[in-house]
Amino acid sequence: MSEVHAARRSRLRARCSAAGSTALVVSRPANVRYLVGAAPADAVLLVGRLGDDVLLSHWEAADAIADPRPADAEGMRTEVLHGESDPATAAVAMAMKAGADAVAVEEHHLTVSRHRALAAGAPGVRLTDLGRAVEDQRLVKDEDEISSLRIAAEITDRALGELLESILVGRTERHLALELERRLVDHGADGPAFPTSVATGTHSGVAGHRPTDRRVEEGDFLSVCLGARFRGYRCRIGRTFVIGSSPADWQIELYDLVFSAQRAARESLEPGTEYRAVDRAARTVLEAAGHGSALGPATGHGVGLEIGEDPRLSPAAMGRLGPCVPVTVEPGVHLPGRGGVRIDDTLVVRSPADGGPELLTITTKELLAL
Amino acid sequence: MSEVHAARRSRLRARCSAAGSTALVVSRPANVRYLVGAAPADAVLLVGRLGDDVLLSHWEAADAIADPRPADAEGMRTEVLHGESDPATAAVAMAMKAGADAVAVEEHHLTVSRHRALAAGAPGVRLTDLGRAVEDQRLVKDEDEISSLRIAAEITDRALGELLESILVGRTERHLALELERRLVDHGADGPAFPTSVATGTHSGVAGHRPTDRRVEEGDFLSVCLGARFRGYRCRIGRTFVIGSSPADWQIELYDLVFSAQRAARESLEPGTEYRAVDRAARTVLEAAGHGSALGPATGHGVGLEIGEDPRLSPAAMGRLGPCVPVTVEPGVHLPGRGGVRIDDTLVVRSPADGGPELLTITTKELLAL
Repeated sequence: MSEVHAARRSRLRARCSAAGSTALVVSRPANVRYLVGAAPADAVLLVGRLGDDVLLSHWEAADAIADPRPADAEGMRTEVLHGESDPATAAVAMAMKAGADAVAVEEHHLTVSRHRALAAGAPGVRLTDLGRAVEDQRLVKDEDEISSLRIAAEITDRALGELLESILVGRTERHLALELERRLVDHGADGPAFPTSVATGTHSGVAGHRPTDRRVEEGDFLSVCLGARFRGYRCRIGRTFVIGSSPADWQIELYDLVFSAQRAARESLEPGTEYRAVDRAARTVLEAAGHGSALGPATGHGVGLEIGEDPRLSPAAMGRLGPCVPVTVEPGVHLPGRGGVRIDDTLVVRSPADGGPELLTITTKELLAL
Repeated sequence: MSEVHAARRSRLRARCSAAGSTALVVSRPANVRYLVGAAPADAVLLVGRLGDDVLLSHWEAADAIADPRPADAEGMRTEVLHGESDPATAAVAMAMKAGADAVAVEEHHLTVSRHRALAAGAPGVRLTDLGRAVEDQRLVKDEDEISSLRIAAEITDRALGELLESILVGRTERHLALELERRLVDHGADGPAFPTSVATGTHSGVAGHRPTDRRVEEGDFLSVCLGARFRGYRCRIGRTFVIGSSPADWQIELYDLVFSAQRAARESLEPGTEYRAVDRAARTVLEAAGHGSALGPATGHGVGLEIGEDPRLSPAAMGRLGPCVPVTVEPGVHLPGRGGVRIDDTLVVRSPADGGPELLTITTKELLAL
């Protein structure tokens, strides 16, 4: 894996040297992970102009949130800091010593205070903005990354499938969510990609609903959103079921509607499609049925090392899909006081010649009565 | 609860108006939660000079991480935003309309890019730094907060106690960690306060060790760190056990040493004690035994709405403990290739007249052979 990371750093270097920057300091954790592999939570990467890259960290273990092990960054220099110093400040100082006169930092990640301390610690160095250069590079995934996402989706489908075989009536949202997360780990996930959402009855269809002690009852809609994290890569599935043998008419109608919207968005996924056209495909269907306002601000988003990354599929998003970009398609409608439906998939954009969008989350989207 | 939050906002307003600021924009999630109660993840609080406070949010549900329900902020105005606008920008604009000419923002939370967009969106408004005003106010806890921490600790002790009654040999770190987290929720926790750490054999004693598939074996040290989150408040316990009937001599020695260091730090907790004196109390014991370098950069830290908050108990920390400040005391030693010991408690600083430090995590610290 270390060559993959070295190649990514070379691409970044090539791209940013062209823009005149001398040294780059990458501090955003998902960006660091992309460029070096698993790294401590506080790690900062100095990308030198000559390939003299250094990973700086305390591997500060005291906070239990951090991964205390050094990065699996064979073949690159790592520097373990002591005391309370900021690895970003240390990185800028190191760049200075190496003769850099400009250092590009991630202004969308560094706080105003941290940036000020950085500048104060490196008088004479010109700090510039690296911007979203690493995020831009992360947008299109290589086959290694897609393969990690594919495994994450397989694990997720399996965990969900097992849940569907068990008795659901009478169990709480909270316990169902915990069981799903345990099953993700049982099947090899590093952990959940995001907090598992289980919503039943009037809660169903609420995006990002936090599980409560409400129990599943006969006649409920039950909506479940979960995803595995595998080698750092995160996917997402969402499904809605009906509890009991005979769904009500309004449940069947609402389900069919959300399903049509979701299918329209999935079918629009093609290299060259505008981000907002994907959103529009789903939104038009829901608006025509009078449920446009129930839809959230976006229909989906990119996934990878983060569960919500570029692109964003929303009415105002600018840009066009490229091949090998994994995205979610996740429209939902919630009717206050009644409940609702969510259907979320993770897919990879592929050209029609390559078979069209690759569906990673393959659990059925028929309305199952459980 | 809403009066508690209103009183906190009044204190903040009183304190910051004295410094001349006109309107305050609080964006750091733990600070927002402290001032309004549970709130959506993207919520930003505008604290007006006249008590005209507003909570702004998308309750942006699309990312599943957010809590999509509006704050339990009865009696205060809430504003639900549409589209993709930044609630902080909207808050500054609202302060302008209300006639503010200066707005204090959290420069230690806002990124450089976000701050720049904020300034661009509000020409003519002077942006100043609110600094850590809310964090400073959060340092000393009221009895409501301490009572939430006490319940969190009770839940944590119970979950750990149950684990100790079960068979451990042959089970993986990963499964033990998941079981502990399930038990936390079973006993009423909102969730774990931080990722549960279970470390066995050569992993034991590593701070923040992420559970692996290593199984517990006869003769191992087993160290476990966990904590419950209850009404947002987070505590922490760490214990080390020995597996099998007869600990080795080196295990008994190392355990006694870490225990002495931990006790020395606990006994130093008193209003007026310097933060670094608490660290020194533990560090001196470990250094005398030649294990000073095995200790991390801090011996403990404050807890509350965050698992690691002010104060920090480290050699360079400036300041003195006050009453009603909850802290952890968590020294540990890890011997590479062999294993180690961690003993973590959560305590509340109290004056000797009030009975001295209040131990919240009461699970025994004898070396148990399981």
